[in-house]
Amino acid sequence: MNEIVTPLRVEPSVLAARLSDERAPDIVEALNAEAPEVAAAILLGLSFERAVEVLDQPELACAADIIEILPRDRVAAYLTGMSADRVTDVFREIEEPGRSDLRARLDAETRGAVDRLSAYGEETVGSLMTTEFVTVPATWTVARTLDHIRQVERTRETIYAIFVLDPRTGTLTKAVPLRRLIAGEPGDSVLAVAPERRPLSVTPTASREEAARLISKYDLLALPVVDAVGHVIGIVTVDDIIDAMVAKQTQDVQRFGGMEALPEPYMEIGFFTMIRKRAGWLCALFLSEMLTASAMQGFEGELERALVLTLFIPLIMSSGGNSGSQATSLLIRALALHQIRLRDWWRVALRELPTGLVLGAILGTIAVARIAIWQEAGLYDYGPHWPLVAATVGAALVGIVTFGSLAGSMLPFALQRVGFDPATASAPFVATLVDVTGLVIYFSVALVILRGTLL
Amino acid sequence: MNEIVTPLRVEPSVLAARLSDERAPDIVEALNAEAPEVAAAILLGLSFERAVEVLDQPELACAADIIEILPRDRVAAYLTGMSADRVTDVFREIEEPGRSDLRARLDAETRGAVDRLSAYGEETVGSLMTTEFVTVPATWTVARTLDHIRQVERTRETIYAIFVLDPRTGTLTKAVPLRRLIAGEPGDSVLAVAPERRPLSVTPTASREEAARLISKYDLLALPVVDAVGHVIGIVTVDDIIDAMVAKQTQDVQRFGGMEALPEPYMEIGFFTMIRKRAGWLCALFLSEMLTASAMQGFEGELERALVLTLFIPLIMSSGGNSGSQATSLLIRALALHQIRLRDWWRVALRELPTGLVLGAILGTIAVARIAIWQEAGLYDYGPHWPLVAATVGAALVGIVTFGSLAGSMLPFALQRVGFDPATASAPFVATLVDVTGLVIYFSVALVILRGTLL
Repeated sequence: MNEIVTPLRVEPSVLAARLSDERAPDIVEALNAEAPEVAAAILLGLSFERAVEVLDQPELACAADIIEILPRDRVAAYLTGMSADRVTDVFREIEEPGRSDLRARLDAETRGAVDRLSAYGEETVGSLMTTEFVTVPATWTVARTLDHIRQVERTRETIYAIFVLDPRTGTLTKAVPLRRLIAGEPGDSVLAVAPERRPLSVTPTASREEAARLISKYDLLALPVVDAVGHVIGIVTVDDIIDAMVAKQTQDVQRFGGMEALPEPYMEIGFFTMIRKRAGWLCALFLSEMLTASAMQGFEGELERALVLTLFIPLIMSSGGNSGSQATSLLIRALALHQIRLRDWWRVALRELPTGLVLGAILGTIAVARIAIWQEAGLYDYGPHWPLVAATVGAALVGIVTFGSLAGSMLPFALQRVGFDPATASAPFVATLVDVTGLVIYFSVALVILRGTLL
Repeated sequence: MNEIVTPLRVEPSVLAARLSDERAPDIVEALNAEAPEVAAAILLGLSFERAVEVLDQPELACAADIIEILPRDRVAAYLTGMSADRVTDVFREIEEPGRSDLRARLDAETRGAVDRLSAYGEETVGSLMTTEFVTVPATWTVARTLDHIRQVERTRETIYAIFVLDPRTGTLTKAVPLRRLIAGEPGDSVLAVAPERRPLSVTPTASREEAARLISKYDLLALPVVDAVGHVIGIVTVDDIIDAMVAKQTQDVQRFGGMEALPEPYMEIGFFTMIRKRAGWLCALFLSEMLTASAMQGFEGELERALVLTLFIPLIMSSGGNSGSQATSLLIRALALHQIRLRDWWRVALRELPTGLVLGAILGTIAVARIAIWQEAGLYDYGPHWPLVAATVGAALVGIVTFGSLAGSMLPFALQRVGFDPATASAPFVATLVDVTGLVIYFSVALVILRGTLL
């Protein structure tokens, strides 16, 4: 907490020597704190294997900038050593003509892999998968498979799942965990140690969430990606999925907070990008919320006659927003975890209706008690008709909290129904949705209860 | 979407036969949809190995209920087959005297493991770890280690990380990934294929988040848990971490939505538990928000003289809440991902101040334009002093959005400072925090600008 940061300027070569024994993710953390020029100089001071390992970490924030600074020949060597999925990600951030130049310097195999991977959209499995995996024909024995694994081990992202192919068609028939191979007899066929079931797989155009769901549900270390005819074209590994899950969680929290997700960490993002990502939703919500001003203008007469009503407007509106925000957060997660499906919306509505009524009644009771205590204790005078005012506030709260719970719980369904991620629903969005209706409910209740007295 | 659910009542034995070829997580999904009595009957219809595999899944929602229904002897056999960490989790949910009775029926080894594991708090690594791991002394060769792995494979949670112990002290000296063993020469010492670095480890009392952070940062498949003297007492595997991450994400979203996290899926939770989890925060927020009524009462005189000011109260307050909610969501994630540390609070404040000013100026400009357009077009009459009213609303928005951004960004720091998880900050909490101050800012600005005209 009281650690003092001394920003000593150290030579990159000294830093490189000091970092060379650290783990790659720790070197990445150190490089992220430096300007790209310094980071590039440090990288050049590391051994080739170390530098490749560092560049291979998705957490390295300015990899594209570093690569553009480094000498082209060295970069080409680094890129060939990196995993194809990572090269593809980095290439996405390099501007032309640099990208075409670098692409031309890749060896044919890496170039082919990168070309194929970059064809997939950013949210798809294709953009997450890597092409370094182990396949063997179904005719091989356990011993021959293990021998093959020993030879290719260094160039494969994982060897803990081995994919067995039909020797005729080359299509995926089994996925064998390495632990079953190890436990098997050397002379056995690889099929003898394979699980009976057909392996799980995804298509390259499936969403990243689908791959994350399968890997997390079935506790997989790697999930094969197959094309239309059943050929394995890549794998998604559990650590890619963890990275994707962490990124998705950040995105979801930021969106639920009512803004566009930021593409980079808070401290690294430019000032104007930050403004843009926040101003969009803020303006949209502001424009919608302007309807409250219009609603208030519509009830101008009532406001003039019963000014006491204005005192409770913030209280009542925020309660609607809060109950809505609770319901939305519940349903976003229930839908994301497939605990509830789109067709269950009416079950949810039937739960939220009584929940909202009870919650509204609790808040309404507190509000009535508050008004009565203030009035009786002489802390404030709500006028001769104060019991009616209290009744208005209490009844309006029941209505508004119920409406908030219902609207908040239905919003994620509505978004999913029209093809959006339910997680695009945000707390401010729900609050805005509920605010205008809340005002109308409040004044309508007032018109019923206070007619003939205050109104 | 249009799938039709036919709630046929099928005999449990028929269901068991139908499910027996499915994967364990799919059987779990089917059981979760049934009452505990039916689920227990289905489980009895499965083979012993299958039933153990199903009970071992943390996703099985009512495992404790099922276990209390099943015949005690059968349960004891199941529990002995399950992994110790899962048995511990299930035991937490079984009431006495059932728990003591079941504990007595466990074999000595499992009982010992469960006793040790249940001593750890729910949020610690100790409650997440399992005791089925592979250790070998540092004097062994690669071949002997592989032989040992072959023998114990079936009873270990993972064999992909092998822990090498000092033969004298029994303390952890290396962690060898299986892939390096496979690639090594059979006659080599196990130390020869081990990575040079000391293995990463955690203590059993560390937080689950710490284990998740290490596994995700260093792409580990298993992380050893060591006691004070350096003995390995358990491991945390990557699939436990994924489950914990998914649960934490749900918790975070629910808390950010302004409620206590639910212990069970939305549809399975009892009505009164649901009310309790939501009413707590809703009442706390309601009581705080009552300060807005007090603030409004304080400005009663101003309200009477310039009723036009009330029209913009909801608009202005919601803008403060929205900008605060954005800032809070940004900082919750930045702190959770260790992108920002507690001591960086002032850097954040220095970013949020100009950000808030710019965002407030954008909204203020829109508001002034709106008032001018409505006035000039004759849509509404804000009175002879309407330019001053517009100026008041515009200036108040700059102040409130700036205050919202600052307060929203500092809240997660404040929570972390006093020892809470920053993720306990919620959108409704920030909105409430900003609302009272927002009103005070609004009326203070009005007093300055409108003094001598409306006020």
